[in-house]
Amino acid sequence: MPARTLGTCYYPEHWPEETWDEDARRMVEAGLTWVRIGEFAWSRIEPQPGQFDWGWLDRAIETLGDAGLKVVLGTPTATPPAWVVDKHPDMFALDAQGRPRGFGSRRHYCFSHEGYLEECRRIVTEVANRYGRNPHIRAWQTDNEYGCHDTVVSYSDAARRAFQDWCAQRYQSPDALNRAWGNVFWSMEYDTFGQIGLPNLTVTEPNPAHALAFRRFCSDQVVRFNRVQVEILRARTDAPILHNYMGREVAFDHFAVGADLDIATWDSYPIGFLEDRTPATEAERARFLRQGHPDMQAFHHDLYRAVGRGRWWIIEQQPGPVNWAAHNPAPLPGMARLWAWEAFAHGAEAVCYFRWRQLPFAQEQHHAGLLRPDSAPAPGLEECAQVAGELAEAPEAGTARGDVALVFDYASAWAWDVQPQGVEFDHFTICFAFYSGLRRLGLNVDILPADADLSGHALVLAPGLATLPQGFCDGLTGTAILGPRTNAKTTEMAIPVPLPPALPGLDTAVARVETVPASGAVPLAQGGTLQHWIETLDGDAEVIETTADGAPTLVAAGKLHYLGGWPDAEALDRILRRACAAEGIETLDLPDGLRLRDTDTHRFWFNYAPEPVRFAGREIPAAGVLWEDRP
Amino acid sequence: MPARTLGTCYYPEHWPEETWDEDARRMVEAGLTWVRIGEFAWSRIEPQPGQFDWGWLDRAIETLGDAGLKVVLGTPTATPPAWVVDKHPDMFALDAQGRPRGFGSRRHYCFSHEGYLEECRRIVTEVANRYGRNPHIRAWQTDNEYGCHDTVVSYSDAARRAFQDWCAQRYQSPDALNRAWGNVFWSMEYDTFGQIGLPNLTVTEPNPAHALAFRRFCSDQVVRFNRVQVEILRARTDAPILHNYMGREVAFDHFAVGADLDIATWDSYPIGFLEDRTPATEAERARFLRQGHPDMQAFHHDLYRAVGRGRWWIIEQQPGPVNWAAHNPAPLPGMARLWAWEAFAHGAEAVCYFRWRQLPFAQEQHHAGLLRPDSAPAPGLEECAQVAGELAEAPEAGTARGDVALVFDYASAWAWDVQPQGVEFDHFTICFAFYSGLRRLGLNVDILPADADLSGHALVLAPGLATLPQGFCDGLTGTAILGPRTNAKTTEMAIPVPLPPALPGLDTAVARVETVPASGAVPLAQGGTLQHWIETLDGDAEVIETTADGAPTLVAAGKLHYLGGWPDAEALDRILRRACAAEGIETLDLPDGLRLRDTDTHRFWFNYAPEPVRFAGREIPAAGVLWEDRP
Amino acid sequence: MPARTLGTCYYPEHWPEETWDEDARRMVEAGLTWVRIGEFAWSRIEPQPGQFDWGWLDRAIETLGDAGLKVVLGTPTATPPAWVVDKHPDMFALDAQGRPRGFGSRRHYCFSHEGYLEECRRIVTEVANRYGRNPHIRAWQTDNEYGCHDTVVSYSDAARRAFQDWCAQRYQSPDALNRAWGNVFWSMEYDTFGQIGLPNLTVTEPNPAHALAFRRFCSDQVVRFNRVQVEILRARTDAPILHNYMGREVAFDHFAVGADLDIATWDSYPIGFLEDRTPATEAERARFLRQGHPDMQAFHHDLYRAVGRGRWWIIEQQPGPVNWAAHNPAPLPGMARLWAWEAFAHGAEAVCYFRWRQLPFAQEQHHAGLLRPDSAPAPGLEECAQVAGELAEAPEAGTARGDVALVFDYASAWAWDVQPQGVEFDHFTICFAFYSGLRRLGLNVDILPADADLSGHALVLAPGLATLPQGFCDGLTGTAILGPRTNAKTTEMAIPVPLPPALPGLDTAVARVETVPASGAVPLAQGGTLQHWIETLDGDAEVIETTADGAPTLVAAGKLHYLGGWPDAEALDRILRRACAAEGIETLDLPDGLRLRDTDTHRFWFNYAPEPVRFAGREIPAAGVLWEDRP
Repeated sequence: MPARTLGTCYYPEHWPEETWDEDARRMVEAGLTWVRIGEFAWSRIEPQPGQFDWGWLDRAIETLGDAGLKVVLGTPTATPPAWVVDKHPDMFALDAQGRPRGFGSRRHYCFSHEGYLEECRRIVTEVANRYGRNPHIRAWQTDNEYGCHDTVVSYSDAARRAFQDWCAQRYQSPDALNRAWGNVFWSMEYDTFGQIGLPNLTVTEPNPAHALAFRRFCSDQVVRFNRVQVEILRARTDAPILHNYMGREVAFDHFAVGADLDIATWDSYPIGFLEDRTPATEAERARFLRQGHPDMQAFHHDLYRAVGRGRWWIIEQQPGPVNWAAHNPAPLPGMARLWAWEAFAHGAEAVCYFRWRQLPFAQEQHHAGLLRPDSAPAPGLEECAQVAGELAEAPEAGTARGDVALVFDYASAWAWDVQPQGVEFDHFTICFAFYSGLRRLGLNVDILPADADLSGHALVLAPGLATLPQGFCDGLTGTAILGPRTNAKTTEMAIPVPLPPALPGLDTAVARVETVPASGAVPLAQGGTLQHWIETLDGDAEVIETTADGAPTLVAAGKLHYLGGWPDAEALDRILRRACAAEGIETLDLPDGLRLRDTDTHRFWFNYAPEPVRFAGREIPAAGVLWEDRP
Repeated sequence: MPARTLGTCYYPEHWPEETWDEDARRMVEAGLTWVRIGEFAWSRIEPQPGQFDWGWLDRAIETLGDAGLKVVLGTPTATPPAWVVDKHPDMFALDAQGRPRGFGSRRHYCFSHEGYLEECRRIVTEVANRYGRNPHIRAWQTDNEYGCHDTVVSYSDAARRAFQDWCAQRYQSPDALNRAWGNVFWSMEYDTFGQIGLPNLTVTEPNPAHALAFRRFCSDQVVRFNRVQVEILRARTDAPILHNYMGREVAFDHFAVGADLDIATWDSYPIGFLEDRTPATEAERARFLRQGHPDMQAFHHDLYRAVGRGRWWIIEQQPGPVNWAAHNPAPLPGMARLWAWEAFAHGAEAVCYFRWRQLPFAQEQHHAGLLRPDSAPAPGLEECAQVAGELAEAPEAGTARGDVALVFDYASAWAWDVQPQGVEFDHFTICFAFYSGLRRLGLNVDILPADADLSGHALVLAPGLATLPQGFCDGLTGTAILGPRTNAKTTEMAIPVPLPPALPGLDTAVARVETVPASGAVPLAQGGTLQHWIETLDGDAEVIETTADGAPTLVAAGKLHYLGGWPDAEALDRILRRACAAEGIETLDLPDGLRLRDTDTHRFWFNYAPEPVRFAGREIPAAGVLWEDRP
Repeated sequence: MPARTLGTCYYPEHWPEETWDEDARRMVEAGLTWVRIGEFAWSRIEPQPGQFDWGWLDRAIETLGDAGLKVVLGTPTATPPAWVVDKHPDMFALDAQGRPRGFGSRRHYCFSHEGYLEECRRIVTEVANRYGRNPHIRAWQTDNEYGCHDTVVSYSDAARRAFQDWCAQRYQSPDALNRAWGNVFWSMEYDTFGQIGLPNLTVTEPNPAHALAFRRFCSDQVVRFNRVQVEILRARTDAPILHNYMGREVAFDHFAVGADLDIATWDSYPIGFLEDRTPATEAERARFLRQGHPDMQAFHHDLYRAVGRGRWWIIEQQPGPVNWAAHNPAPLPGMARLWAWEAFAHGAEAVCYFRWRQLPFAQEQHHAGLLRPDSAPAPGLEECAQVAGELAEAPEAGTARGDVALVFDYASAWAWDVQPQGVEFDHFTICFAFYSGLRRLGLNVDILPADADLSGHALVLAPGLATLPQGFCDGLTGTAILGPRTNAKTTEMAIPVPLPPALPGLDTAVARVETVPASGAVPLAQGGTLQHWIETLDGDAEVIETTADGAPTLVAAGKLHYLGGWPDAEALDRILRRACAAEGIETLDLPDGLRLRDTDTHRFWFNYAPEPVRFAGREIPAAGVLWEDRP
């Protein structure tokens, strides 16, 4: 396990060359190890087609490296310059309304455009040729935040042609495709692959099988795009290759992209995310306004630990207010430290603050850095330095394996996006709800893909997993709770017959589904309600819980459970505690905002509450971190 | 009057041929008489241009017919196959933003496209030639749900050219059109019909006269489209011809389409409609979540009885959760029975549940059927069979003529959509509010077009009837309450001078109109308020009601009343009771959710409440139906 | 100072010629002096290209003039006829989604279209040639409501080309532009001006420097368009030239347009504006539903007094319900009088009611006039006549200079629109909040541009003034409160370094900004909160106010203050009272809805409340106006 380190993101091309040396010195002084550069610098590396200006980048790398920093070098393919666009005027993605998403910001390309892919091959090859063996370059990043700004899905002509090819590969004949999708419905049958359009601008909703196939294709295009870069880099460097995933970006399969990489890194903006992408109540939004949701960061840590097969970083960590949410509050003092320690407790190898210095111009001018625009220290810098100091004396790195596994599946996210049936049904949201329920009990959780080996986990949860892989249940050794909506679809987005969940040995079938607004929540016999999604379960399985009216809700065959609805927090808490008790997993009753995480040797406590909390003899200040020997 | 019968909608092309026989047998066993087929099967009837595959359809009809079922055969023109689209790439409607509404679902055609209309002529002729004299085909359906998914209004080039022709026919000269529309305002005058555009993508609102003319044109195009099919069918069959209208679809004139047909049928989805198209308070939405609004079905029954000139069906009846609303709750047990009985009490000849078996693939896979996807009975089947059993012993069919007539007018719906003046003003909504007010008093209502003979009704209501037909008042024999906004427009969408309502013998004029949000409602002297729409009435007519400040609100000359505003429920209740009392019409004071309907011989009670209700010695369970001899 | 006069807007082309005489007579009888005509009449003046029909307009002017009315003649360029559009099919503006904003209403032109500008030159020249010396024409209006319906900003090809030229003029080289905008960020650098696109349809937000430059360009195009007309008119008439600005239209620089004109006029629709464009609480919306916000009219009066360099009118005054808001209530009796008197108290030379007679057809048929469509008097007419009568005996015209100056700056409005950082930050809204705070204290306010001479004002407020002009602080002689967000940007939309506000002699710097939703408001030590926008102030300036936690919020060096956040009403009230006290400016404590305005000799009281108010011995009825000698 590599040591826990800190770093930052730096853009030498934004600053006068005479400041680089001092910047590098101050980075080292703040305790930083890593500096990421280069990922948006195409127009400075290749100002004109085929004319390269390497000098400045050579000198920047040398300056940073000589100061003792390890450099992560990014490929600049997220920001093709104007001249690339001039060469490929149709390289833009089109949105669902058919409008081009043009030049003037970033990520202005369609993953399916062959001409642009060729430009990427060329520039990545050039950069890799020059720096692949440079001793200061200790890691490479491909592109930047695939999918950010909703850029995975494109409705361009290039995408349509590529999708037709993808369909031809997958289905081999139009007739097979028609049968797979059920195109006999509404006479949607195709005679040739060339007739297949993209599932936008239809009169009413398109065939969900069509839409899901398109979402799979879009994800595959990201994998392909990334792989092209990885193959070029692999041939030219031995340094590890990573990509920086954006928080709550689920439009492509991160496990699939991650399989080609060495390290998973993600970009953590807790306060921005609370405002714009975290499932939370209004009360939570107010309470955690300057801290972020207590489970949002940990969810991603646990997810990317799996995506990186154990190796993961935060490569962009919010150090102060950001610029891109509807409101941009400042972190509570201490949060820049807490977020870093929480990442380390979950096994991060590195935490890099974004960015070194607040840039006073262009789109992100209101995004805080470790330094202010005038180079004075911003509040984040002191907390960063504090973490650096603490790392020296703090307990060993690493994190404990979780007792509980939660299955997260990108294809399910697309499936439920395509066909929620009730507006609230969303894969991330239900997984996050279950994850939060586990965290409030003080549990260590592993978030894993559907095809992971789950045999070592005493408790496995898989809500909303659209299609169970072959043999999934055979791999379970402890208690498992599947559902709601688990195994509810074939791989081609149909309802299986016999009816779901069709679990081995468990005599239950989802006879009917209803989705309801808040007023339609169904009370449970033991307290709490089913909300959003309610299934009618048929069959003779053992009944563990029922509705107040006596309809089975949680059924079991031995340790295998099926849950026929979306429990509210009260019901979920009871269900999880019962399962933990059955497996002898200790559960706690944490105060609101307090969270913990175990490493192999220590237990870390994190207080996300805006006030001090007391728990079992401990007192932890707001935004406080505490560690102690593991119980 | 034909007997009351049940039926279902079936898609043999979706299921293996070996299952048809068993399906037919079970349909008969469940007590069904009718089975509707074929309306989306174009790609199976004519898989390639000019190549027909009749065999499967021949056998399906024979199987169903031989089992004793009467078949309704639909023309497949709502779902042209891909090859039709390839032939006519510009056949799509364009939405108001100019985007094509393309292939991949259904209803992907513009009513004004001549090439597509020719394709329709061809396929309908072929189908009619083959089955026009088939003894099993006992009715024909044209197309499917004209207007569903907002498909009446199209901004295509084809529509523009056709609209120019329509204007030339209607106005004869550009100058006449300019004068009719008042195009001198803002220099909107045209020199030629070829300059006339469609009223979308204007900088601010278009001329309401322009917009209304366009809406009239759009409706006329539907009438024309339907008539083409009817004429082909008439020449080839003696079976009655019907169309299935969608609930709260008012973009074309159903009376005009219905005039060419023999039976009006409509598609009743009470729970889906409550969520997405029923005017209701939040409390009503919660209370009737699993029942639908107590007046929404009856409103349509009473409307389509008029559209069908006495002959009407429900051809699609929700039997369980649907798939298309934001939330899709399951019906309260008993509702599938209640809805059918309510239809029969209002005079339906048939109620057909949609669909026979839940289809596990494509867009509607979460739409319940009478059978589950695995062919097990769904809850609706038992209720359907119960109704079938009850029909044998239940009182005679037919329904009583209403004491009260409510005028519903499609052109008024377009007029107020074009120019609401206050956002709440909508023709359907105000008519529905008046209808609900009548129903809460236990009254039988007839919903009639503006040109109907109203002489037999003791009470006539016509809120928001934009333009009174010539001689309208002469035809009234009982009490009439016109207004608000009645006769407020000329046929060319201008304010008439002398000012409205210009009723014979009634000295009142709408001197001013104001529209207000909830905070601006105006208290009435006798209780309740005027909301949304408030008129200042000038003149010496007898004053029946005033505002708390003494301004006349309800005025009269003999039995002819004019109501100068939109009364809230309390005020409406008083006004209606007074009118009924004057005519000797008995009114009741029904508990919340209880409704009744009289046939000639019996009174039917329907409990939409989620709990049992007691009324005048009766106790009716939730979702209960009760009938008794007519008082 | 010209005498205070009344007028109306009239469209002879809408009415039979035989009615003109009677209309003119009744106008004079009602006490009107002015009548504005012609501004939408292009299709009647030039029905075919180059064929003019002057006769009707000659006669209309003669009829009106002979009756004793002074005529304002408008150029008809806001409504080009269909034949102009046929000649220039690409003359439309495109919206941000790329859709043309076409023919069929008004303002259907792009300010950057050279072909249309040439058409305007031609028609204005023709009209001016004919009527420039007509003795009845006593003023000219250019076009109509520049910017209404969001028409300043256009994304057409014509606009793109013109913007590229504008950039070339401003920056001289692509490299200079790249540096000015900071295009090195995200590789957005341009090689040629021809590569520069408009800042719409980008993947994520465009560079704010790019967006601000485009907004400046758009404003300049309006100035240019107007100047073309002014130059033609100046050469042909000696009458004053004016334009009618629309309320809360800030997309172009009214000071810049106004510099070319003689009189500023604006269109005042208090009730429509309350519904659709006035910053107000829900309680205020309910309370002032039929009166308009008590400060919205005065704000514009004080603004346009500056735009017109002392000379200003209301050229369109709402006399009754309008047609264009979501709801359109009727004014409380007396408001049509109150609004006029309030304008006169603020120095208006004329108040013209829009329109003379309600037009029963086309878009504005529900817009009240002084007459009803049937020519009977509408309620506004009596109030108009009452004002006319009062004017004869009322105190002298003119208005007092304010003690307080509030700086309003169009470029700041664009800057904060481009980059609010927190969704609530809007220049108009914060200026309006400060203005309301001053008005509630009974103060006379001057609203002035940033480059005005402020030396005569004892108190100067400049919230959200993006960039202070050179020497701004040198010109201050009294107390000044700058901030929040004042001087926060360079002219190229960057954060200045050293950090803002960089005020001479005031040692404070905005070290950090946070923006918060309502739940994040920060309590102040002396009561109230900072809301929306909160700055962290660094430095050794004298601290006047702090947050409850002791962070400096209001700092000073002598009379120069900087306010580091957006105070709520309670805090603002305290800050303003303190500042007034320091300068010896008397403040009052007005009841809710009561406002006052001083002329040189008199104090006017206006009661916007819907009930009578008592204040210091006075009792003023709802919608009442009172004047008395100045204290």
